[in-house]
Amino acid sequence: MLTQEDLRITSLGPRKLLSPLRHLREGPRSFVPDDRRVMYHIEYCGDEIVNPLGFEKAGPREQLYFDPAECRAAIVTCGGLCPGLNNIIRNLYYKLHGDYGVPTILGIRNGYLGLNPELGREPFPLTDSVVEQIHHQGGTILGTSRGPQDARVMVDYLESLGVNLFFPIGGDGTQKGAHLIAQEIERRGLKIAVVGVPKTIDNDIKFCYRSFGYLSAVSEAETVIDRAHVEAKSTPRGVGLVKLMGREAGFIAAAATIASGEVNFTLIPEAPFSLDELLPAIGRRLDKRDHAVIVVAEGAGQDLIDHEQGRDKSGNRKLGDIGPFLKQAITDHFNEVGKPAAVKYFDPSYYIRSVQANAADSLLCEMFARCAAHAALAGKTDLFIGLWNNRPVHVPLRVSVGQVKRMEPARDLWSAVLATTGQEKW
Amino acid sequence: MLTQEDLRITSLGPRKLLSPLRHLREGPRSFVPDDRRVMYHIEYCGDEIVNPLGFEKAGPREQLYFDPAECRAAIVTCGGLCPGLNNIIRNLYYKLHGDYGVPTILGIRNGYLGLNPELGREPFPLTDSVVEQIHHQGGTILGTSRGPQDARVMVDYLESLGVNLFFPIGGDGTQKGAHLIAQEIERRGLKIAVVGVPKTIDNDIKFCYRSFGYLSAVSEAETVIDRAHVEAKSTPRGVGLVKLMGREAGFIAAAATIASGEVNFTLIPEAPFSLDELLPAIGRRLDKRDHAVIVVAEGAGQDLIDHEQGRDKSGNRKLGDIGPFLKQAITDHFNEVGKPAAVKYFDPSYYIRSVQANAADSLLCEMFARCAAHAALAGKTDLFIGLWNNRPVHVPLRVSVGQVKRMEPARDLWSAVLATTGQEKW
Amino acid sequence: MLTQEDLRITSLGPRKLLSPLRHLREGPRSFVPDDRRVMYHIEYCGDEIVNPLGFEKAGPREQLYFDPAECRAAIVTCGGLCPGLNNIIRNLYYKLHGDYGVPTILGIRNGYLGLNPELGREPFPLTDSVVEQIHHQGGTILGTSRGPQDARVMVDYLESLGVNLFFPIGGDGTQKGAHLIAQEIERRGLKIAVVGVPKTIDNDIKFCYRSFGYLSAVSEAETVIDRAHVEAKSTPRGVGLVKLMGREAGFIAAAATIASGEVNFTLIPEAPFSLDELLPAIGRRLDKRDHAVIVVAEGAGQDLIDHEQGRDKSGNRKLGDIGPFLKQAITDHFNEVGKPAAVKYFDPSYYIRSVQANAADSLLCEMFARCAAHAALAGKTDLFIGLWNNRPVHVPLRVSVGQVKRMEPARDLWSAVLATTGQEKW
Amino acid sequence: MLTQEDLRITSLGPRKLLSPLRHLREGPRSFVPDDRRVMYHIEYCGDEIVNPLGFEKAGPREQLYFDPAECRAAIVTCGGLCPGLNNIIRNLYYKLHGDYGVPTILGIRNGYLGLNPELGREPFPLTDSVVEQIHHQGGTILGTSRGPQDARVMVDYLESLGVNLFFPIGGDGTQKGAHLIAQEIERRGLKIAVVGVPKTIDNDIKFCYRSFGYLSAVSEAETVIDRAHVEAKSTPRGVGLVKLMGREAGFIAAAATIASGEVNFTLIPEAPFSLDELLPAIGRRLDKRDHAVIVVAEGAGQDLIDHEQGRDKSGNRKLGDIGPFLKQAITDHFNEVGKPAAVKYFDPSYYIRSVQANAADSLLCEMFARCAAHAALAGKTDLFIGLWNNRPVHVPLRVSVGQVKRMEPARDLWSAVLATTGQEKW
Repeated sequence: MLTQEDLRITSLGPRKLLSPLRHLREGPRSFVPDDRRVMYHIEYCGDEIVNPLGFEKAGPREQLYFDPAECRAAIVTCGGLCPGLNNIIRNLYYKLHGDYGVPTILGIRNGYLGLNPELGREPFPLTDSVVEQIHHQGGTILGTSRGPQDARVMVDYLESLGVNLFFPIGGDGTQKGAHLIAQEIERRGLKIAVVGVPKTIDNDIKFCYRSFGYLSAVSEAETVIDRAHVEAKSTPRGVGLVKLMGREAGFIAAAATIASGEVNFTLIPEAPFSLDELLPAIGRRLDKRDHAVIVVAEGAGQDLIDHEQGRDKSGNRKLGDIGPFLKQAITDHFNEVGKPAAVKYFDPSYYIRSVQANAADSLLCEMFARCAAHAALAGKTDLFIGLWNNRPVHVPLRVSVGQVKRMEPARDLWSAVLATTGQEKW
Repeated sequence: MLTQEDLRITSLGPRKLLSPLRHLREGPRSFVPDDRRVMYHIEYCGDEIVNPLGFEKAGPREQLYFDPAECRAAIVTCGGLCPGLNNIIRNLYYKLHGDYGVPTILGIRNGYLGLNPELGREPFPLTDSVVEQIHHQGGTILGTSRGPQDARVMVDYLESLGVNLFFPIGGDGTQKGAHLIAQEIERRGLKIAVVGVPKTIDNDIKFCYRSFGYLSAVSEAETVIDRAHVEAKSTPRGVGLVKLMGREAGFIAAAATIASGEVNFTLIPEAPFSLDELLPAIGRRLDKRDHAVIVVAEGAGQDLIDHEQGRDKSGNRKLGDIGPFLKQAITDHFNEVGKPAAVKYFDPSYYIRSVQANAADSLLCEMFARCAAHAALAGKTDLFIGLWNNRPVHVPLRVSVGQVKRMEPARDLWSAVLATTGQEKW
Repeated sequence: MLTQEDLRITSLGPRKLLSPLRHLREGPRSFVPDDRRVMYHIEYCGDEIVNPLGFEKAGPREQLYFDPAECRAAIVTCGGLCPGLNNIIRNLYYKLHGDYGVPTILGIRNGYLGLNPELGREPFPLTDSVVEQIHHQGGTILGTSRGPQDARVMVDYLESLGVNLFFPIGGDGTQKGAHLIAQEIERRGLKIAVVGVPKTIDNDIKFCYRSFGYLSAVSEAETVIDRAHVEAKSTPRGVGLVKLMGREAGFIAAAATIASGEVNFTLIPEAPFSLDELLPAIGRRLDKRDHAVIVVAEGAGQDLIDHEQGRDKSGNRKLGDIGPFLKQAITDHFNEVGKPAAVKYFDPSYYIRSVQANAADSLLCEMFARCAAHAALAGKTDLFIGLWNNRPVHVPLRVSVGQVKRMEPARDLWSAVLATTGQEKW
Repeated sequence: MLTQEDLRITSLGPRKLLSPLRHLREGPRSFVPDDRRVMYHIEYCGDEIVNPLGFEKAGPREQLYFDPAECRAAIVTCGGLCPGLNNIIRNLYYKLHGDYGVPTILGIRNGYLGLNPELGREPFPLTDSVVEQIHHQGGTILGTSRGPQDARVMVDYLESLGVNLFFPIGGDGTQKGAHLIAQEIERRGLKIAVVGVPKTIDNDIKFCYRSFGYLSAVSEAETVIDRAHVEAKSTPRGVGLVKLMGREAGFIAAAATIASGEVNFTLIPEAPFSLDELLPAIGRRLDKRDHAVIVVAEGAGQDLIDHEQGRDKSGNRKLGDIGPFLKQAITDHFNEVGKPAAVKYFDPSYYIRSVQANAADSLLCEMFARCAAHAALAGKTDLFIGLWNNRPVHVPLRVSVGQVKRMEPARDLWSAVLATTGQEKW
């Protein structure tokens, strides 16, 4: 159980400078006081709520810890691509440089690799002309890479660069690295704010109701499903099989299913299924309507591949590709029962994540970047910007890292999937 | 000040039937108890919250008032087009017919006109083949119309059709009509559930944080702004001027501004501006960067047209078209100061609202439709499905109709606009 | 060498009826006389051209062979999906039914299968409401299938249905089948016009300069390439590898390469390549620019898979999947030389062919359908509608079937690819 | 009547240098000999063709006039925006710099204005990083402007810049200016090649069968028509009225009509219409189907505005806006006859031309740019690159300027429009 103490945000020190944000100074209620909280539980039954738990609300502070004119910021993007990375970079630049007046914003190249001077290339300063058009491009102009680097090496390098505002953008592994960096910074008594922005196209980071890029990915996934539907309907006993992202959580598969409205079976990691139940159910659907659309998250059905096809898990090969496995299983089953199905398999893979952010995600990116800039200049550290009950909040890295948000099969989104597909379970 | 009593939902009577929703019956916690509330205020500073105000949470009820097999539903869509209308219709059909087993779902044609048998055309029954592809089309297959009809006439007609589940989809005027219908039904002691779905492309209905169609419109508007930016940049002293929807509230203009990231001045109804301040500010921008992009909500600056151009408000002509007015004012001003600007005017008008729903809106439509079906079958009436702190809730029509949600210039979204555009105020 | 006699079009008999096309009757020059030809060779050097070879020009004839009011048409779509199939169906319906007044247009289901009453399902009559929206959908509402049926069985069935205008839409195999049908019809002395529309997403049918669906596919392919470019640029030594359609001819790969402008190596069936040359060339590119984009047509490099990976060609498995083969070869090579590359593989497969037709293809479909209707009603048979030097022409099936159009590596399009990619050869 | 002499191309002098294009040198037939012609008339009836007229075929020449290493090129874009301008710039840069090795390519800013040093800003050199992403943007990175400058001033400036390859991209006015420049150059005995690329979104330049940007515009226009159709169908007696580009020629309106398949009346400059015929025809359509879609090219019906609404043509206002005129006329007419229509008016204006080029246009741009580079380096001048019977050709400016290509109402495209809309005439 979380306590209010768990949600306490670390500060670099007392704040004395007045924020230079003029458009807020003239409407003073726009600054967010530090004791403003966003309630953790907002559904209730009784008449009184004692000791309500809440996250610190994100937003502009009237008092700053850092003098922007003396700051030097650095941004790093890590892990797989996600729509909106360039929007985060662009907005951080505009907030820090344009609004607060931070003179230098460095782009760290290729993820944490770029913070290891022995491995990576030098950072480069962001400018107006560099960032102007980047939100119309997918990917990240900073480049990215996977995997950690030694926190001491990275802090050495940040120190040598004179950085005091550090913005790591990435998934759970990245935030874990950010937490190690923040701890190393604290150990050394340095004054560097570490404010992360959670990045997960799978939407599976805890305390972040909706992550940027997720809806863009859902939108692309919906298009793929629509085409699988076209293929399935155009041929006798046609089956459109679509593999979508979702290693630990089936959010993309679920949302794309609902948005498309044309899926008959959705398979996700959270809801185990057996071929003994699935294949006959597909058969009933084909007998009745002559076509079927199946969406499978990449993390679904891993136990099937383990147990039934142990030989698929050896050597250098990637583990458990559920897509071809299902394609084969479906094809074989209907050949065996003498009523062949025509399985059309779609594996959009990277296609879905390299798109530029759509409008909904652009809005979200602006908010995350804006709040991250506010938090860092206020001297808050060791946190990421979360989204809780639709409000931006400060989430301590120590409580968020290492946790995965999954769909709860007994709740809303999954119910909606079941109702939309008409599938009996899974 | 709202009280908990204000938020009480009207019921047609006691409920006894067990819900047939099998996918929920097997995961019993998925049903929503009637006393589950979604907190009204979720930001706080202290340690105790007494008598918290909350909306009744929407969702499936374990007990129904109506036996689905004996029901007859009717759906009507009213007012201007909005992306997602066909998704609402399609999802209502699937929830009512497919999930609950309601045998007949009638489509009322052309808004409330279709409930006046002397004026409208006959309703038609929805079927699988009618609704199958409609979510890929903009508009509404039911047609629509503006304006009210006599509530007594409409209730007469609903009664004669044998309808007991009635779903009016429309804006504030429509929901006002729905409230009159519900009152007339109550007066007659009829058992007809009236459950609305709020429709406002402008996102200006209260108690509905985000209305369906809004993000689709923002997405289209963003594209228009991007093209205005292209035009503005391609010519010396180019000004791209874009008029967007937003009669009472500037949400579309604000969100499209942030999503686009390329607007220099955003003008909305909530933030009055004067030409004496605006025109020189545009001039400074042009002198500095040689191009400017301006977004104006259709309801902005109405006082300017009134007072300075009173002659524009007479006769049969529509009142206050701020777009051409601004275009002329900007052109004239820069001609007068001897540094002509090239104003490229964009009025996308209906283009933005006749698009099909994007993925984010499709998801929202599914939720609204699903919750409306649940509420109606549970015998709840005189309400619409709202969205509060990101949860679906039941909102009594008596407290919602006649109210307009506006942007609060001192708060988040508007602050983000000011930060994004760099405009000094308005 | 083709002779003019080779290009002679077969007629069902003399024509006596006046065309009912009023919009043409009033502008009489719009009818196309039968002796109008479109020149075969249009580039020349000298001053005189003797015995110029030419195709019969397609278009409306002033005299018809069939009385439209007594006709019964049938449309069949065969083989793989291709953008525009529904446009062809819709336009054929409107031309035949709306313009000429043919009372019944039958849709044959699932390709030639639907002409074998023992295997297929019954045809269904097309109507206004059936075809109204279909051009906004990918696929074919008639369904499709692969493979031939016995021509005698099919002609029996066409005869029993009373069909006298028959429109087979499909690739080379389909047109071969159409030719057999036409021959069987002639053998029996029946009066059934067989007028095909060539369908090849690969654009590899001879005498058809541009086939419908091809540009839609190129457009989709361009998007995939753009995303591969995004991925490649976002990671150190990133390689975006895209497999595109093109079994016998690399037109899609070539055109998408030029349209995208971001490809470094394009590999097609017509231009054999060796890994010994390709891999070092990729290495040079990576050393210089740190990323590379490679496009490979599915039919390219088949000899490599044969000789180097003979085991990939046995059993039930599909032959020679060049995509994964190349991915592995590139990965291995750069691992071996100690400078690993990050290969991101894109296999859009069906995604590209199930899209709806774009505007350019919609225009082409209208033309093909219109000309096919004209030809059939004029009693022409055993032909398909070709496109020669940008004009619609009648192409006898006997000269076109069994031929494949390939890119000529020494000519324009391939030169443009070489210039665009900067690749040295292949 | 054109003679072969009319089509003769001017040369700067004899050619001696061998082309450095290696990918062509190795396939020698790929060079185009100078006496290769593309036949002017390709439809015929007889058996012999004497003195065939033909354009000089464009393409790479084996011998060059200029030594690329000593060249300096300049590109200018003039007039209204058109999709593909950036593609032309990017491809010209890559062909000239990358393929031929021309060291410097200057971008002239803001059209011919930029060639008048007293009015415009300085040119800037194009580089890899400048052009890399521009084909993903609409507009032109060089900027544009309207109107001519003194040819002597411009030639002075080109001379002072040391430019010997000059590429004016623009419409008829621009090519007229280019012709004056070429004449001035000849008068002075300078060795500067002037090779234009015709730019007309309206597709109305003679000897250029399809101009770049046209199909992109048609595609955008089709989308607008589809939305107008949605609006028209959603309301009783709904009329969707769309104004499209097309001052002198109705190509965009015609092609978008055919591509959309949902237009009932298409009005173009080439086909005069009267309200007395049009309005009752719309009435018949509304009575029968309850909705109608009308497309009007901006240049259509100008005589109606003249004669019936002379007052619309005075003062500062733009002449003859047919859109609002028709909207009013239709509204008034149906009010008068007591059966009001709901007219939804769409004026996409600049929206359609500021889009990026689609794949079909990107291909065309690459070809135009490639051929322009080849022609200039071969020392050809005073020409533009045309497209004749689908082949790129050299068109002397002296025969092309001042001519407008219009649709011939008695021919193919217009016939297709009449057949598609079912309109009786116009």
